[in-house]
Amino acid sequence: MTAPTANPLTAPVPASGDFDAAVLEAGVDRILTLFQRLHDAGALPPVLSQVTPGTIADQLPALPPRVAEPIETILGDVERIIVPGITHWHHPSFFAYFANSSSVPSLLGEFLTSGLNANAMLWVTSPAATELEERVLQWLWTAMGLPDATSWFGMITDTASMSTLLAIAAAREAAGYDVRRKGLAGRVDVPVLRVYCSEQTHSSIDKACITLGIGSDNVVKIPVDDAFRMRVDALEAAMTADRAAGMRPLAVVATIGTTSTTSVDPVPAIADLCAREQVWLHVDAAYAGVMGIAPEFRWALAGVDRADSMVTNPHKWLFTTMDCSAFWTRHQDVLRSAFSLVAEYLVTARDQQVVNYMDYGVQLGRRFRALKLWMVMRAFGTDGLASRLRDHCAMAREFAAWVDADPAWTLSAPVPFSLVCFRHAPEGMSDADADAMNARILADVNAAGRVFLSHTRLHGRHVLRLAIGNILTAREHVALAWSELQRAARAS
Amino acid sequence: MTAPTANPLTAPVPASGDFDAAVLEAGVDRILTLFQRLHDAGALPPVLSQVTPGTIADQLPALPPRVAEPIETILGDVERIIVPGITHWHHPSFFAYFANSSSVPSLLGEFLTSGLNANAMLWVTSPAATELEERVLQWLWTAMGLPDATSWFGMITDTASMSTLLAIAAAREAAGYDVRRKGLAGRVDVPVLRVYCSEQTHSSIDKACITLGIGSDNVVKIPVDDAFRMRVDALEAAMTADRAAGMRPLAVVATIGTTSTTSVDPVPAIADLCAREQVWLHVDAAYAGVMGIAPEFRWALAGVDRADSMVTNPHKWLFTTMDCSAFWTRHQDVLRSAFSLVAEYLVTARDQQVVNYMDYGVQLGRRFRALKLWMVMRAFGTDGLASRLRDHCAMAREFAAWVDADPAWTLSAPVPFSLVCFRHAPEGMSDADADAMNARILADVNAAGRVFLSHTRLHGRHVLRLAIGNILTAREHVALAWSELQRAARAS
Repeated sequence: MTAPTANPLTAPVPASGDFDAAVLEAGVDRILTLFQRLHDAGALPPVLSQVTPGTIADQLPALPPRVAEPIETILGDVERIIVPGITHWHHPSFFAYFANSSSVPSLLGEFLTSGLNANAMLWVTSPAATELEERVLQWLWTAMGLPDATSWFGMITDTASMSTLLAIAAAREAAGYDVRRKGLAGRVDVPVLRVYCSEQTHSSIDKACITLGIGSDNVVKIPVDDAFRMRVDALEAAMTADRAAGMRPLAVVATIGTTSTTSVDPVPAIADLCAREQVWLHVDAAYAGVMGIAPEFRWALAGVDRADSMVTNPHKWLFTTMDCSAFWTRHQDVLRSAFSLVAEYLVTARDQQVVNYMDYGVQLGRRFRALKLWMVMRAFGTDGLASRLRDHCAMAREFAAWVDADPAWTLSAPVPFSLVCFRHAPEGMSDADADAMNARILADVNAAGRVFLSHTRLHGRHVLRLAIGNILTAREHVALAWSELQRAARAS
Repeated sequence: MTAPTANPLTAPVPASGDFDAAVLEAGVDRILTLFQRLHDAGALPPVLSQVTPGTIADQLPALPPRVAEPIETILGDVERIIVPGITHWHHPSFFAYFANSSSVPSLLGEFLTSGLNANAMLWVTSPAATELEERVLQWLWTAMGLPDATSWFGMITDTASMSTLLAIAAAREAAGYDVRRKGLAGRVDVPVLRVYCSEQTHSSIDKACITLGIGSDNVVKIPVDDAFRMRVDALEAAMTADRAAGMRPLAVVATIGTTSTTSVDPVPAIADLCAREQVWLHVDAAYAGVMGIAPEFRWALAGVDRADSMVTNPHKWLFTTMDCSAFWTRHQDVLRSAFSLVAEYLVTARDQQVVNYMDYGVQLGRRFRALKLWMVMRAFGTDGLASRLRDHCAMAREFAAWVDADPAWTLSAPVPFSLVCFRHAPEGMSDADADAMNARILADVNAAGRVFLSHTRLHGRHVLRLAIGNILTAREHVALAWSELQRAARAS
């Protein structure tokens, strides 16, 4: 062997892609300037992108470049081509779906995560990633006012869809049919498996059950009461009927903060029923779980301490960049046996001492997501987080009061948190006409680009949703939404 | 209604978490300095973190802070507590697993993605995210020398584990049992479903089949030939036997670049068989697929144009930050019917004209990952990417030549790409003694921290793996690995 010294990476090709600190710094500076421009209160971009389908694609060459292009050219195209095609989730007047946002500590955490580029699949592949993930999920659990953090196994996934899939997979494993090894197909010894949730539950429950081979027909949608909360009597009746029909109740998904109205299912009563029936209880608190950080909202999390698993999404309403979903289960061993596999090339000497997060989910590769959540929790402190969440709820209540005080508008659901469901309903207008009018109002408001709202359907009627969750949102933006809605109503 | 003007977010709590450009800029500067320090050729940190279990956790308080902490304090703790617990994947002497790395354009893309924080779930929620994702996956397909990019549906997922799960879910949907609606449990009309792959295939195939309710017992591991390639005769025999036993062959997963040795399954012959048997063919080219960018390596991708789906991971060997897995299928409609759900709160006026990526996978929320891949492809150009991949393969061949020339060492598998499997095997030492010695050598080398390698087992023997894939890796780092191994062998 001869001692090699030359670096074959430097000479033959342009260097713009390599790890050149000066290029990186210049690029970052330019992006910071772009962010500042996009956040300039006097010249905010449209919230909803105003492009038509194909506008962006038409500006992108069909073939990739053979020759390297300078970073400055590419960043110029980001500003010229990409930014007009962005719907600005990080905009103070984003009120659609569940509004969310990043924040300075989260952005810094993401920047560290991508620069370190650690894979948090095994403890040894970055011990800090694993140990920080365990600890920060204990922090969040405790911050929400929930007891016994160390007796729950916490894990960060990408989305609530995935967290809920893990929960139902664990329930499937716990049911005792050795599904992991034998599967579900072609077996006479496994009954039809049933999962229960309310008719207001998020579509991710259906998707998890489709993926897991349970089937969407076996997701039983339980009716709700007048405040859109799961009816426990109906849940019990459904389970009883299913058992009588030879089916196996597998899991109940209760929601704290449903997507359409943020209603809160009666988790304590559901937990009682699940305990009696020996059925896995998963709590989907993707949106509202974090409200437990403010003590006066902890009523919403009653019963969670008796669930088998729970999800809340820091990337939704905790100022943490996409993606970051926090998942807990009290049955670490069950989740592990649902997913762990031992491939020789992944065996390490530490395996008996540590958590290897790859053993607990679908994905092998895992980003170091705990860093940004840890930085958010420290940079705001739980008091600071509670204060901002409280402010969002107060703004929502104020908007609801404006709606309530105007005879041409009506509230469509209670406002427990930061979402308002409402509807333009002038006296004497038929429901069908009002549906059409609300759809027109929404289209008009969103096309104007100053605010962005979305809709849902409640009791069959078209209802508008104003969701507050962006860290930049202030009372003036909520007021702007109200004046935009009134302008659109006059024009419709 | 009164006109509100005050911003309730500014006064009551410390502002360090809010979107303050100066705080962000100062934080970014400090992180850039950290990155430079970690990349200082004269003072590189240990590749493998040297901490013991609990070291990091013990430095983290059990409870979250109530009061906000300054960003500088937190970043100080990142350097003091977190960095020593990082195994540096972004280190030129990282040779374990499949080495990977980020790059300047990818880091900038990630920074943009997290700052914009767009959710790429629907076309309207950021048209640029959807249209760029479609286009950049056409680019990558074409760059790999594959034909008819526009007739394949491309999609970015987080990991190859997820891409393969989507592929097998699509195969399950295509099989015609209406699994989506009815599930698999308690049905007499669905036979046992079988998925085939070689005994060298990645564990993610098992995991996907466990998740999907197919079961790990129904993942049929086909024997390999002397070069670790799936034996097509054995595959055909297994399918025939399964059909005779009343089971249903569902899918074959062929691998281009297996994890242990980077062997390449005979995809053209497997494609012929799958066509005859009407079985879904998924190609796992997570590691080696990108090698198609260099024309002289396109032999490896022969037959992919006749597959039903394929995955390659830009986050593995294309200098793109975790996570970014590229997935294609020629059956867009099948994938869509396997996963699409229409919840009223997600309905938009554009749904008939555009791709809504949420319809094609498990997750609803999706990061704007296309941006970084687009920036990487432009900043390097396909020639620049090919050049770097080629260099990695050349370095691996050179290392293999050093091994081959030393009588105390032996190559354990062919070296088609950038991975070398080898073993210390002095003349006269028993296989069992050599196994133990190779394990000691590996432990010694990794504990020293100057390089990081991993291992596998081939024909029952303990084999070391040197994987080149980091953009910073130069010939001197490979030479360092070789001298470290020789030092450890002398000491063992």
